[in-house]
Amino acid sequence: MTKKISVGLLGLGTVGSGVVKIVEEHQDKLQHQIGCPVEIKKALVRDLDKSRDTNLTKEKFTENVSDILHDPEIDVVIEVMGGVEETRDYLLTALQNKKHVVTANKDLMALYGSELLTVAADNKCDLFYEASVAGGIPILRGLVDGLSSDRITKMMGIVNGTTNFILTKMSNEGKAYDDVLAEAQKLGYAEADPTADVEGLDAARKMTILATLGFSMKVDLDDVKVEGITRVTEEDLQYSKQLGYTMKLIGYAHRDEEEIEVSVQPTLIANNHPLAGVNDEYNAVYVYGEAVGETMFYGPGAGSLPTATAVVSDLVGVMKNMRLGVNGSSAVAPQFPKQLKADEKVLSKYFLRLHVHDQVGAFSELTNLFSDQGVSLERIIQLPVKDSDLAEIVLVTHEASLGKYEKVLHAIEALPIVQEIKSSYRVEGDGSL
Amino acid sequence: MTKKISVGLLGLGTVGSGVVKIVEEHQDKLQHQIGCPVEIKKALVRDLDKSRDTNLTKEKFTENVSDILHDPEIDVVIEVMGGVEETRDYLLTALQNKKHVVTANKDLMALYGSELLTVAADNKCDLFYEASVAGGIPILRGLVDGLSSDRITKMMGIVNGTTNFILTKMSNEGKAYDDVLAEAQKLGYAEADPTADVEGLDAARKMTILATLGFSMKVDLDDVKVEGITRVTEEDLQYSKQLGYTMKLIGYAHRDEEEIEVSVQPTLIANNHPLAGVNDEYNAVYVYGEAVGETMFYGPGAGSLPTATAVVSDLVGVMKNMRLGVNGSSAVAPQFPKQLKADEKVLSKYFLRLHVHDQVGAFSELTNLFSDQGVSLERIIQLPVKDSDLAEIVLVTHEASLGKYEKVLHAIEALPIVQEIKSSYRVEGDGSL
Repeated sequence: MTKKISVGLLGLGTVGSGVVKIVEEHQDKLQHQIGCPVEIKKALVRDLDKSRDTNLTKEKFTENVSDILHDPEIDVVIEVMGGVEETRDYLLTALQNKKHVVTANKDLMALYGSELLTVAADNKCDLFYEASVAGGIPILRGLVDGLSSDRITKMMGIVNGTTNFILTKMSNEGKAYDDVLAEAQKLGYAEADPTADVEGLDAARKMTILATLGFSMKVDLDDVKVEGITRVTEEDLQYSKQLGYTMKLIGYAHRDEEEIEVSVQPTLIANNHPLAGVNDEYNAVYVYGEAVGETMFYGPGAGSLPTATAVVSDLVGVMKNMRLGVNGSSAVAPQFPKQLKADEKVLSKYFLRLHVHDQVGAFSELTNLFSDQGVSLERIIQLPVKDSDLAEIVLVTHEASLGKYEKVLHAIEALPIVQEIKSSYRVEGDGSL
Repeated sequence: MTKKISVGLLGLGTVGSGVVKIVEEHQDKLQHQIGCPVEIKKALVRDLDKSRDTNLTKEKFTENVSDILHDPEIDVVIEVMGGVEETRDYLLTALQNKKHVVTANKDLMALYGSELLTVAADNKCDLFYEASVAGGIPILRGLVDGLSSDRITKMMGIVNGTTNFILTKMSNEGKAYDDVLAEAQKLGYAEADPTADVEGLDAARKMTILATLGFSMKVDLDDVKVEGITRVTEEDLQYSKQLGYTMKLIGYAHRDEEEIEVSVQPTLIANNHPLAGVNDEYNAVYVYGEAVGETMFYGPGAGSLPTATAVVSDLVGVMKNMRLGVNGSSAVAPQFPKQLKADEKVLSKYFLRLHVHDQVGAFSELTNLFSDQGVSLERIIQLPVKDSDLAEIVLVTHEASLGKYEKVLHAIEALPIVQEIKSSYRVEGDGSL
C-alpha cells in the first residue's frame, strides 16, 4: 500500500473547489476508509493569478497540463474542467499513463464514454463518472450495483435542475417563461447562454449515460429524441393542473423486450407519481425494474459541494480498489446490441391543445381523425377563445403509438377548420385531482 | 475462477422463492456480470413435503442445515429464514466454514451485526445485508459507497411499510386505526400479530442498522427511543392536515458534533418535505449530508421480489469479489465511539393536543408553563369540546430541547384545569398549506 495517494485536479472552478474542500474537511473519514492520507498535489488552472476561493496553496497551481498528466507520483486525475475534445485527449493520456480518472463531465461521457472506458480497462485503470448524472445523487451506483440483479425496463429522470426550477416557478407562480428564466439567471440556476439546458441537450446527454448503463447497450446522443421547454406556455401549465398533472422536463428511457426508446420531452406527469413532487432545482431519477418495481433516487442535481461529493465518493472507490489491487475491473461492457424501437412501438398518452374555427361539425371533424387512426380520447375540454370566432380544444389521448399519433397530427394540420396547433406533450400516468 | 458458483439458501418462503425466481430468470444478466453460472444448490426448508410455488426441484430441498453449512461446494449462504439465535449460530458456522453470507435479516443484524461482521472479516468472507433495511431500496450502498466522502448528519426513514400503509389510509380515508389494521391484515400488509410493526420495533431495528452505518458508530437497539402508532387517532390526523403536515412513523437519527440521537416516533412532517409524499406501503430514507445536502431513496420496503432483488444484488457483489479475490475487505469498522445526546441536546418542535376545563385564565395558566421553561409556541388552536365544559387545545412549539419539553409536560399533567393530555408528537419542518 502506498503511504499517500496523490490527486491531480483538472479545473478549479465551482466543482473543483468543492473537491478541495471535501478532501480537506473530511480527511479523517477518507483516511479511516482507505487507510492512508489523500492529497491534492496539483491543480490545472487557466490563469495562475486569478484569485480563488480555495485553501489550495498557490504552489500547487499549474497552467501546464503535462505537470499533472506526466507526474509519476500522481495516482488519480480528477477532471472537473468541462469541455470535450481537448479534455478527451487529456484523459486518454492520463489513462495511458496508468492514472485512474474520476470525471464529472456528462458531455464527454455521452460522446466518448465507451472509448474512454475501453482505454481505462486496457490500462487496468478505473474510470468513474457518478457526478456526470444528477450531481450528488448516487444513481449510477444504484443502477450498476444496487439493482445489478434486476432487469430495468424504464427510467424517467428529472435530470436538469435549470429547467426544473423554471417549470416549477412558472407552474407555482403563474409567471411567464422569459421572466422566470431571467430570475434563474440572476440566482445562478441558469447560464448566461441557457441553450443547452432549456433545449434539453444537457438532459439528453445524461439520459444517454443512464440508458447505456441501465439497459446495458451502447446508446448514443443521436438516439435521443430531444425537445426543450422554450415553447411551454402558462396556458399549458394551467391545463396540466386542471387535468391533475404537473409539467416536467422528463428524460424517458424505455425497454420493451430488447428494443429501446430514449427521449427528453416536456411531459405531463400524473400528480400521484413520485416525480411530480420533485421541485425547484432538485433532480430525481425514477427507475422501474421487473423485480424491484418502482424506485426513485432524489437529491441535488448540481452545485459545488453536492457534485464534489459524488466526485470524492468516486475517488474513495478508486482508492479502495488501489488498496485491493483491483482497479480497472469494475466496468461491465454492454451486454446487448442496440436496437431502437420503430415509431409504431413507441407508446404513450398525449396532450394536445389547438385552436379551431368554431363551426358546426368542427369538433366531430377533428375527433374523426383520431378514430381513423384508432387513437381513442380520454379527456376533452372545449372552451371559446375570447374575442374571436375560435374555440380552444384540449385533448388527452389514451395510450397510442407515436406513429399513429403523428399521423393524426399531420391530418389535423391539413384540416381547414384548424387555426393552429398550440402544443403537444407526452403524458405519463392518470391525472388525479 | 470457479466454473460455477453454488448457493445454499436458508429458507424458502416469500423472499426465498423470489431469490430462486430472479436467479433463474436473470441468469443471463448475472452470468454477463460475473462470468460464470450461478446455481441454487440446496435450500433449507422446515417441511420437505409442503407444496411450494417455486421452480426449484425437490431433490434440492433439505431439512438438515448441515447439508448446506458443511457442503464444501457451497460458496455463498443466503439467509432468508428469519429468527435470531439459531440463525446467528448457522451464519457463524457458515462464515467459519469460509462461506460468504447474504442476509435479509434486520432483527439479526440489529442485534448481532457487529459480531457477525467481525467473524466475516476474520474469515475473509463477505457479509452483505442490503435487504435488511427498506427492502428493494439500495440505501446501505447509498450510504457506504455513494455518500462515502460526505459527513452524514441526519437520516429520516419511513422504513416500515405496514405502518405507512395504515397511516396513509387513516389520513386519506378518515378511517379508524383498528379498521385499517384489519384491512392491512387482509391485504397481507400486516401480520396476524402486528406488534413488531405497529409498536415501532421493526423500524427501530432498521434505524439501528442505518445509524451504525451512516454515523460510523456501533448503535444498539437499546439506544433507540421507540413509540409506535397505536395511539394515533383520527383527530390527530385531522389536525396534522389542518396545520399543513402529514403524519408518518419516522425513524429519526441525528448527529450533532459526535453525539447522536436515534428514535422512532409518529411525527408530523411538513407537507413540502419529500417524505410527506411517500404513501401506502412504500418506504423512503431521507439522508442529509453536510456536503451533498438533501437526498432521498424511495422504493418498495418489502415484498418477495423487491427484497429478493436486494439479496441477489448482494450476491452479485459477493461473486464479483470472488472473481477478484477480494472478499471480506469491504466492511469498514466504526470510526467513532458511540456517544448519545443528553435530553437537553435533543432538539425538536412538538405537537401537543389536550383537553382543559374551560375556565377563566385556563389558557394563560397553560401557556405560562411553556414560558417558564423558555419553550415558545408557534401555532395555537383552541376549540370547545362538544357537549362538555372542556376546551380542546392544540399547540405546536418552536424548536425546544426534549428535556425542557418533558418538564413542561410534567407540569401540565399536574395542572388541575387539565383534564387529559390526548397526544404529543415530534414535528419536522414548517407546515405549509
